[in-house]
Amino acid sequence: MNSEIFSLSERLVSSSYVRQGLQARRAHEQLIRLLLQQGKCPEEEWSESTVELFLNELAVMDSNNFLGNCGVGEREGRVASGLVARRHYRLIHGIGRSGDIAAVQPKAAGSSLLNKITNSVVLDVLRFTGVRSVSSCFVVPMATGMSLTLCFLTLRHRRPGARFILWPRIDQKSCFKSMLTAGFEPVVIENVLEGDELRTNLEEVERKIEELGAENFLCVHSTTSCFAPRVPDRLEELAVLCAKHDIPHIVNNAYGMQSSKCMHLIQQGARVGRIDAFVQSLDKNFMVPVGGAIIAGFDENFIKEISKMYPGRASASPSLDVLITLLTLGANGYKKLLAERKELSALAERHGERLLHTPHNPISLAMSLNRLQTHSTAAVTQLGSMLFTRQVSGARVVPLGVEQTVSGHTFRGFMSHACYFLGHIFNFKRQTISYIPVLLSGDDSFRDSLYTVKIIFQKCK
Amino acid sequence: MNSEIFSLSERLVSSSYVRQGLQARRAHEQLIRLLLQQGKCPEEEWSESTVELFLNELAVMDSNNFLGNCGVGEREGRVASGLVARRHYRLIHGIGRSGDIAAVQPKAAGSSLLNKITNSVVLDVLRFTGVRSVSSCFVVPMATGMSLTLCFLTLRHRRPGARFILWPRIDQKSCFKSMLTAGFEPVVIENVLEGDELRTNLEEVERKIEELGAENFLCVHSTTSCFAPRVPDRLEELAVLCAKHDIPHIVNNAYGMQSSKCMHLIQQGARVGRIDAFVQSLDKNFMVPVGGAIIAGFDENFIKEISKMYPGRASASPSLDVLITLLTLGANGYKKLLAERKELSALAERHGERLLHTPHNPISLAMSLNRLQTHSTAAVTQLGSMLFTRQVSGARVVPLGVEQTVSGHTFRGFMSHACYFLGHIFNFKRQTISYIPVLLSGDDSFRDSLYTVKIIFQKCK
Amino acid sequence: MNSEIFSLSERLVSSSYVRQGLQARRAHEQLIRLLLQQGKCPEEEWSESTVELFLNELAVMDSNNFLGNCGVGEREGRVASGLVARRHYRLIHGIGRSGDIAAVQPKAAGSSLLNKITNSVVLDVLRFTGVRSVSSCFVVPMATGMSLTLCFLTLRHRRPGARFILWPRIDQKSCFKSMLTAGFEPVVIENVLEGDELRTNLEEVERKIEELGAENFLCVHSTTSCFAPRVPDRLEELAVLCAKHDIPHIVNNAYGMQSSKCMHLIQQGARVGRIDAFVQSLDKNFMVPVGGAIIAGFDENFIKEISKMYPGRASASPSLDVLITLLTLGANGYKKLLAERKELSALAERHGERLLHTPHNPISLAMSLNRLQTHSTAAVTQLGSMLFTRQVSGARVVPLGVEQTVSGHTFRGFMSHACYFLGHIFNFKRQTISYIPVLLSGDDSFRDSLYTVKIIFQKCK
Amino acid sequence: MNSEIFSLSERLVSSSYVRQGLQARRAHEQLIRLLLQQGKCPEEEWSESTVELFLNELAVMDSNNFLGNCGVGEREGRVASGLVARRHYRLIHGIGRSGDIAAVQPKAAGSSLLNKITNSVVLDVLRFTGVRSVSSCFVVPMATGMSLTLCFLTLRHRRPGARFILWPRIDQKSCFKSMLTAGFEPVVIENVLEGDELRTNLEEVERKIEELGAENFLCVHSTTSCFAPRVPDRLEELAVLCAKHDIPHIVNNAYGMQSSKCMHLIQQGARVGRIDAFVQSLDKNFMVPVGGAIIAGFDENFIKEISKMYPGRASASPSLDVLITLLTLGANGYKKLLAERKELSALAERHGERLLHTPHNPISLAMSLNRLQTHSTAAVTQLGSMLFTRQVSGARVVPLGVEQTVSGHTFRGFMSHACYFLGHIFNFKRQTISYIPVLLSGDDSFRDSLYTVKIIFQKCK
Repeated sequence: MNSEIFSLSERLVSSSYVRQGLQARRAHEQLIRLLLQQGKCPEEEWSESTVELFLNELAVMDSNNFLGNCGVGEREGRVASGLVARRHYRLIHGIGRSGDIAAVQPKAAGSSLLNKITNSVVLDVLRFTGVRSVSSCFVVPMATGMSLTLCFLTLRHRRPGARFILWPRIDQKSCFKSMLTAGFEPVVIENVLEGDELRTNLEEVERKIEELGAENFLCVHSTTSCFAPRVPDRLEELAVLCAKHDIPHIVNNAYGMQSSKCMHLIQQGARVGRIDAFVQSLDKNFMVPVGGAIIAGFDENFIKEISKMYPGRASASPSLDVLITLLTLGANGYKKLLAERKELSALAERHGERLLHTPHNPISLAMSLNRLQTHSTAAVTQLGSMLFTRQVSGARVVPLGVEQTVSGHTFRGFMSHACYFLGHIFNFKRQTISYIPVLLSGDDSFRDSLYTVKIIFQKCK
Repeated sequence: MNSEIFSLSERLVSSSYVRQGLQARRAHEQLIRLLLQQGKCPEEEWSESTVELFLNELAVMDSNNFLGNCGVGEREGRVASGLVARRHYRLIHGIGRSGDIAAVQPKAAGSSLLNKITNSVVLDVLRFTGVRSVSSCFVVPMATGMSLTLCFLTLRHRRPGARFILWPRIDQKSCFKSMLTAGFEPVVIENVLEGDELRTNLEEVERKIEELGAENFLCVHSTTSCFAPRVPDRLEELAVLCAKHDIPHIVNNAYGMQSSKCMHLIQQGARVGRIDAFVQSLDKNFMVPVGGAIIAGFDENFIKEISKMYPGRASASPSLDVLITLLTLGANGYKKLLAERKELSALAERHGERLLHTPHNPISLAMSLNRLQTHSTAAVTQLGSMLFTRQVSGARVVPLGVEQTVSGHTFRGFMSHACYFLGHIFNFKRQTISYIPVLLSGDDSFRDSLYTVKIIFQKCK
Repeated sequence: MNSEIFSLSERLVSSSYVRQGLQARRAHEQLIRLLLQQGKCPEEEWSESTVELFLNELAVMDSNNFLGNCGVGEREGRVASGLVARRHYRLIHGIGRSGDIAAVQPKAAGSSLLNKITNSVVLDVLRFTGVRSVSSCFVVPMATGMSLTLCFLTLRHRRPGARFILWPRIDQKSCFKSMLTAGFEPVVIENVLEGDELRTNLEEVERKIEELGAENFLCVHSTTSCFAPRVPDRLEELAVLCAKHDIPHIVNNAYGMQSSKCMHLIQQGARVGRIDAFVQSLDKNFMVPVGGAIIAGFDENFIKEISKMYPGRASASPSLDVLITLLTLGANGYKKLLAERKELSALAERHGERLLHTPHNPISLAMSLNRLQTHSTAAVTQLGSMLFTRQVSGARVVPLGVEQTVSGHTFRGFMSHACYFLGHIFNFKRQTISYIPVLLSGDDSFRDSLYTVKIIFQKCK
Repeated sequence: MNSEIFSLSERLVSSSYVRQGLQARRAHEQLIRLLLQQGKCPEEEWSESTVELFLNELAVMDSNNFLGNCGVGEREGRVASGLVARRHYRLIHGIGRSGDIAAVQPKAAGSSLLNKITNSVVLDVLRFTGVRSVSSCFVVPMATGMSLTLCFLTLRHRRPGARFILWPRIDQKSCFKSMLTAGFEPVVIENVLEGDELRTNLEEVERKIEELGAENFLCVHSTTSCFAPRVPDRLEELAVLCAKHDIPHIVNNAYGMQSSKCMHLIQQGARVGRIDAFVQSLDKNFMVPVGGAIIAGFDENFIKEISKMYPGRASASPSLDVLITLLTLGANGYKKLLAERKELSALAERHGERLLHTPHNPISLAMSLNRLQTHSTAAVTQLGSMLFTRQVSGARVVPLGVEQTVSGHTFRGFMSHACYFLGHIFNFKRQTISYIPVLLSGDDSFRDSLYTVKIIFQKCK
């Protein structure tokens, strides 16, 4: 409220109280001012009341909320349902213009500010989580896979003759489909086993480039976060190769923001070689609903080029979720949420299983399922279904030697990231594991009937 | 947001858009300014976004929402549940101080403003609905009956020797109990039948005053809104009597705000005689949840005296509901909600029943139930239960000659407001009636078995 | 949703997923079933989603939300503003009937359930916080003071000849007013100083009873929670006296639920003597908005009698707040919130002040302000204003020898609970104190000018 | 709640009331049952309470809301901010799987149901608004332009050798960019002027197909809704041509759902020729926030193919908005929102201007701005800025002969859909026009200074 309103209030309520109220309002405004001035994630969390105050202020600036709006001839920004209007804080216009998803809209100063500030705050988070030299980024209301597709489509305009994308294998469907959707042919590089770890086969990468010709590659498409025993790609070496052969390099950093190791790999890759863009999901990295991603990079012009490829205005919903979340957490709160690694006990060994040694994978762990080995795959499937009915999410059982065909390409040993694996594995995220399945020792009956496999879930810290 | 914040916004979004946004904000502020300046119900409805903006601004002024609040030693204004905080817009302090329910609280400039403005806006509504000379009022989070009790308790301090309250009979329990709860002895004046109408027996009133002595009466307790065939009390004549005998006069105006006739009666009563306070319910008059009332009067000092009788701080919830409702309706919207009288068709007669002629009752109508007359009361009870199971609310069946004892006092013919009535009646509110029960003509079977009474509900306009 | 709907869902989504969803729904229902079955505060907290599910279910049972509601002739339960409807979860009917604030309403099965369950859960909390033998209670949407008034008004019907209420002095306005509002004459018993503590003067109590006659006392009105150096009344001895003289006994337990000592005193008093009802505030005890209280007692009939004194239906808002809060905390969460006593450091002494020794007061502490002693009262006032502008709530400065007249009665030494105190004191709640004011040692300048008093707030743990 | 819970309730509240409540619950359930059974937009609107009940039920079925969820190793469906969780009704999982945006998710039966039902209800709406034979559709959380891109990318897999997209010119940036983003070369067909109308140049279309070879065209990309004087493309003739030459046909139906004429054109096109998919925006057609589209078609397999091209899971936010909106409107409410055409008065002529005669454009109208003709373009620009500052949205001024370059392609006469236009025009939507700008007659001063152009906005009905 402006000063005139405060003066009027003093006629109703003693002026010393009103002045204290005015001072309190200024404390909220001070936070908003700092946010706009610095464009950074605030150190300390904001209260929900400050967040709502801010969003209401933004909404008031959008034309659909103008009190004098005569709305000639348009349904622009009109919303039929009050439930819908409220759940979006009356920010209805989406983000971007037909020309550019990161651009400002004439009719929607508030929504435009929301978009700009969110991108700016997210850039700050990318920096303090490890990619210090990132120069530009934007939030896009599409899945990570579709966002990768948009990057590939943008590159096509720069390399109209390219047909292939070089891709070290990672067994996750949408990564693979992102290339096919963009109309390119993935050149799959199988990983090599080093100890327990599956790592990037750099020799094979270089061989393929020479075999097919660097100019025929749209880009290298590498990956950081993945399920063990695969580990993040050798980003530094790949980036150097890309620079050497003048091939663009797009990194799928899916859930990598939670790991300082993944972020460090990107920072290093860009320093010593070439990374054109890296893409990360919003949901797990920021704990928001599914459906958004961040496209980021080191060359502002290239990132701008990508944002200009999106034809039309886009949903502001993921941007709004990220902004609310970061303001209510603050930078300090966000950092606390980042993966706290937990030492897994010797639990596996006590039960005759082995934790695979994958030190390069900062996110996920894998355990052997040897005791199930001699038995048919049905036992493994049963374990999977037990996880499901016990409502255990975030862990999965990978049976030995499954073949899967994705959009015409057949992957042997699907979900183990390699075609030559030797046993079933139990795969789970490192950071919040609290239960692992343990086969009961007295499983003689097991030999007789698969349906008596007994599994307990033992709590570990 | 202040001008500095707008300047910062201009660095992110083109300044012409920001300036338009600023202008839009001013449009909301202008409405708030007018409200504070005039203290009146705005002519036009406010949008929900303006209402929420205003409430958020108020909340920010309360000390529980101070960002720098160190909260020494107190749970003052701390709320455990986020659900609870949000549903009260974080206005937690209630209204009033221990000394006065209408007073300003040091810790809560926002809640205090809410309280002041609500009372001021409600006063405006009382004026434009007909009691033009009302000088003071306040919202109290208690039922109408309990609010009447508070009025009586206040009067006791002025008339310490009084024992009786003179009360023209109205068959509604809480009115009667309000006097008993305050510790007084009601002197019940039975109504007289004039035509179909039950009206105040003024001769009896005067006779009782003389019999028991004016100085022994705490007050006259009259009623406006009531079910037909009772009609509003003869307020003018009662007010003149009160002035003449120097007896205070408290009017139960329960749902009378919906009727210009009731409001006019109060205005006239105060003009020609004496009315000390009139009390009305919040729920039906303002279409808000049950549980609040307005105590109003013509002598500011006396109303202040009542507000000072409430020991402690009170719930702000009813005040908040009324304020939100009046702002989102506007004066014009409120006026539209006021009772539109509907001409009831000749329906009753077509079915051999009679609509009682009660022109002085602006709110409620009554219809005979002659066809049920000759049968036992069970038929009437059955009709009542049919209304209930058909989810017909707002109408009731009054069986002939029911006796009911309320707090020790026995009322003959309860709910018909008189002890000598001749038939069952069907009683309903005038304004929104859309169905009335009609006995089927071919009800021969009825004579045989009560359980075959056939009733249809016929739509009327 | 019922089983038919789940079957239909299985046509759209795989039935194993739907069955898992159904099982998940049952987990919520199980919690609701237990609540209804046991009528107790659940041990563990409910998620907000369970709470909202439950409230929505209740709302659906109220007639204003009936889809087929034809609403004949009534505005019953109609709410004009969507904002208002939503903030009350569409529970609009309030609680109670005109006959009884704790009764069931025909039109509102959901609101009635809300009312019953809230009272039942609150009774459970009263028991586990220490008053194990409490037999009945109800939530009333009125301040503690007004609730005490209602108790006194109820007693009047039992003791029509009584004029006095015997009241050991406690310097809090609304306690005192609660008796005046009910129309009685407080007989003030000054406290006696024992060491640093102000305690009940039992001899004087007994003397007064004999002087004025037990039959002329409506009741004894004692107090538990209070600011130091006053300590809770000697409840056991008072209860024995009441039993001996056949005088009712009403206890003001304002904020006493936070202290097991206060609750224990009530339990003991009722065991060895007579306590008719005890009244506590909702706000600080349950961390909900201001404006409700609980009236509880050991004789179900008497508590029922009080609930029947409230004329009319009452606001459900405080009941709703309490229920939401207790469900989202759970019994365990509630217990954790209970006062954790903190040992106050030797801070006071380091600054030449003394912490008063008041071991019988479990809630509040007092510190001398000797250094301000020799100076005028203005210095004390200045300290108070510093607390205010620093947004320190929950602490207060009590200047020496202030006189205050409350409703005609003059209290010497107001706010110190005694008329003969010797110095200014600084008074604060025990439990959450984190800052206390400390006068700077080098306060020579102070002697010259009051306006240079320097005070720092030193953090204590 | 299940029957056991209702039984328990009967112990607290009279069983007849509880049974009425149970019956009321069934009324809500009946609506939900019908929705799931029929998969159609309900005829009558649902109350907000039914909608919220339904959404809460869906949310309970998602694994993130399972009370027993042990959440092993994952942040799956965990949301950091309560504000965010609530605004999505705790439906967090998005829609689809990595394999298919329309597929069911194992962990999220509720979100999956939401997705299925939304698509089913939207299909029903497409049918009753005119495209009776549409067989399949899905909501996608992307702009119309990006959704068109997805269609083109899908077609690429069917026609790997194609390079061109045949596109009758429409001056809207994102339509044009949708083809470039997908990596294709638009072949622009200039429109022909027939009377005042700009219509599809069929001869030129056929000529181009023959010139470049049908097999080299990915598809024809036609448009329905557009600004006058352009009118919807000749869909029937184009569809016949596509069938004849075996070229796919994608229709941009942007805002065409509001016009029965546009929908009829699509229905006819598919009947007599070939339409592979048609894409429409969510925002204006359903009055929801910007950022979603519907992709629909007549061959279920092809639509499924498109949905499988989206790599990853997508935001459920637009689906949720559409579902809430359609349920709260009902089919009848939706139909009422559909364009009510208003006869524009002879206003234009009274002011010396002419309304262009464009009977084939059901959505938009254009008016000449002859009086500005003789003056410089600055006058037109000024008029545009006046519209802006008067907060008139939905209308625009098109200056004569503006050239604009979009992604390298230069359009002469941009925004007039043709390169040879003769005058400035004022362009606005038909349906909700309420003000048009009118030049004052006494505009002599205008000749002297452009800055004194006087324009009034005259209300028309």
